[in-house]
Amino acid sequence: MNRFEPNLRIPGPTSLPDAVREAGARQMVNHRGPEFAVLQNRIIDRLKTFFKTQNDVLIVTAAGTGGLESAIVSFLSPGDKVLAVTIGAFGDRFAKIATVYGADVTKQSYEWGKAAEPAKVAEALAAGGPWKAVLLTQNETSTAVTNPIAELAAAVKAAAPDALILVDAISGLGAVPFETDAWGLDVVVSGSQKAWMVAPGLSFVAVSPRAWEAAAVAKMPKFYFDLAAHKTSAESGQTPWTPAVAVMFQLDVALEMMEQETLPEIWKRHTAVGAAVRAGLQTLGFKLLADPAFASDTVTGAWLPEDLDWKAFNGKLRKLGLVVAGGQGALKGKIFRIGHLGHVTVPAILNAMAVLEQTLIELDRPVKPGAAVEAAQVAALRALGLAK
Amino acid sequence: MNRFEPNLRIPGPTSLPDAVREAGARQMVNHRGPEFAVLQNRIIDRLKTFFKTQNDVLIVTAAGTGGLESAIVSFLSPGDKVLAVTIGAFGDRFAKIATVYGADVTKQSYEWGKAAEPAKVAEALAAGGPWKAVLLTQNETSTAVTNPIAELAAAVKAAAPDALILVDAISGLGAVPFETDAWGLDVVVSGSQKAWMVAPGLSFVAVSPRAWEAAAVAKMPKFYFDLAAHKTSAESGQTPWTPAVAVMFQLDVALEMMEQETLPEIWKRHTAVGAAVRAGLQTLGFKLLADPAFASDTVTGAWLPEDLDWKAFNGKLRKLGLVVAGGQGALKGKIFRIGHLGHVTVPAILNAMAVLEQTLIELDRPVKPGAAVEAAQVAALRALGLAK
Repeated sequence: MNRFEPNLRIPGPTSLPDAVREAGARQMVNHRGPEFAVLQNRIIDRLKTFFKTQNDVLIVTAAGTGGLESAIVSFLSPGDKVLAVTIGAFGDRFAKIATVYGADVTKQSYEWGKAAEPAKVAEALAAGGPWKAVLLTQNETSTAVTNPIAELAAAVKAAAPDALILVDAISGLGAVPFETDAWGLDVVVSGSQKAWMVAPGLSFVAVSPRAWEAAAVAKMPKFYFDLAAHKTSAESGQTPWTPAVAVMFQLDVALEMMEQETLPEIWKRHTAVGAAVRAGLQTLGFKLLADPAFASDTVTGAWLPEDLDWKAFNGKLRKLGLVVAGGQGALKGKIFRIGHLGHVTVPAILNAMAVLEQTLIELDRPVKPGAAVEAAQVAALRALGLAK
Repeated sequence: MNRFEPNLRIPGPTSLPDAVREAGARQMVNHRGPEFAVLQNRIIDRLKTFFKTQNDVLIVTAAGTGGLESAIVSFLSPGDKVLAVTIGAFGDRFAKIATVYGADVTKQSYEWGKAAEPAKVAEALAAGGPWKAVLLTQNETSTAVTNPIAELAAAVKAAAPDALILVDAISGLGAVPFETDAWGLDVVVSGSQKAWMVAPGLSFVAVSPRAWEAAAVAKMPKFYFDLAAHKTSAESGQTPWTPAVAVMFQLDVALEMMEQETLPEIWKRHTAVGAAVRAGLQTLGFKLLADPAFASDTVTGAWLPEDLDWKAFNGKLRKLGLVVAGGQGALKGKIFRIGHLGHVTVPAILNAMAVLEQTLIELDRPVKPGAAVEAAQVAALRALGLAK
């Protein structure tokens, strides 16, 4: 990771391990043939272990947003009452998809940087209904906040037991603790270019038996994103439309690597890198966007001081080989974000801190050389139980 | 191409040239950064030359079917009168998408193996209307027929000048003659895994100014497949949702190879392989599905004799390293199809003929050794003007 091989620290696409990259160079196979069926079945079995589910998991060739659309159109009808709990740009997007397809959407929005509150969700549910579905975001990439999905889902189940719980878990699942079945989630969406360390192009959707019952009567128009068609095809090891075969090859390798690392170790690694980034950025004087109690371990957002120009700052970071993300929507030019999910280690974060230190020193800002690197390392070791 | 490196002769995904394959192994970049913008702009410029258009060309992360859906939902409203001209399974699919989204679809179907007739299309248009759009298929992959799009489009323009012409050119564009602008086509869809010699995951859609006018008032629900959103993003070198970056890397290399070969040479090569396959299969005793006047130069379908079991036949072909496609829909088990588009040469077709000869001889069928290989080679050389 130097200027010739950038440290890609955006919240997806994440950088790919060499073995994963190389699998993207394999020759094509017949997507209606036996090799593909073996490949897809193996991938789905492994995805189920990472989703922590016995439900069906389906693979859709699309970005994560396509996965979200499949979750809306496959299970809902126009006019259905939907509570969309949104804490940022991606929560807003999930709500907008439901609105576009004619759902009767009530939006519960939170200040950006805050997590959703189970009591407020319960209150909103009690005040209306009958609710067909509740939309939740596990990890809001735009604000770097991880919602307490277990508690939110429990609140939904108490207040509106018949409502389907649809979860955007695109940028968190596979990196931080998540339980599809134990938390009673009906539809859970993730995307290949996040924790899975794979190129973009595939979305994964877990579907509960209760959601399939809803699918049977769902009336929103759908064709490409019809998950029932995906389920039928998956039963014979196929997909309804031609799948992104090369990305599937990469996913197969990545899932094997994840299995070898084991999920508890993956979660621990993300705890360490999350702590490292937050400590390092704060040592550099940045104010973090997220409520500390719900700070994401896959992405961190920091406010840009008013006298620090985003374009000049980012240009210097890029010259030193560090690629970070800017703000989205209303936060454009006001924050920057560091992704730390998937193929990421503590040393990769220390590299990012070193570049941030040098850049800020070049910009004549008061930074103590080495301090952020040290703080990040100490925080990581503490998170791992290796320092006090 | 032996049993260890199969001769992938299906009509997509097509086999990838080595340089294209290898580009799929590149490390990720920031899809919101300058490298990606340069990449996408270069790809779009080159796609325009192959589409033969000055119109916008947009890249959608989805299979070709997703591209078809984007062509329907971006420009039409529920209740719009649409004439769907269908000569097979993919024409039926295009019609079905329009139906699902509420268009008032009149289907004009032809016997499988036949091309659409301009006079009949004009007749259907004259009998109804006002028509908002006509759906055409350039190359019907299920029946191996290439429609006379120039003549069909001219008939539409004469009979219903205000109707948008939407063309599924997924399995033909980039391989056989096609003119988006000269033929006055409004929306043209193709897919990465066909003539473009790239892994599946991307669809390309050309859009005329007249179609953009329709988009401004189009009321079908849409989010992921909203081409207007793709146009807005493309203006700053981006895509609205995370694109299939690794497939874009491959596409960039493939388009450079196609540019070096030049479009007239690519067309000539497909004429030769098409002639070779048809001659070889007929010499083997197979009856072809397609009307000879409209036989496709990218895929050929042949009837299976009643006493030749598809599964046994296909199993033997596979053992010898030849991967062909079966029939779709009503033709399942009744025909087989050989793909010959994209990364294909006459020697690759001779290899396929050799395997077919050996397989049929193993199955005790009356085949003269070498005859099909010879016939295919002679037909190819004739098509190239190198033999009488």
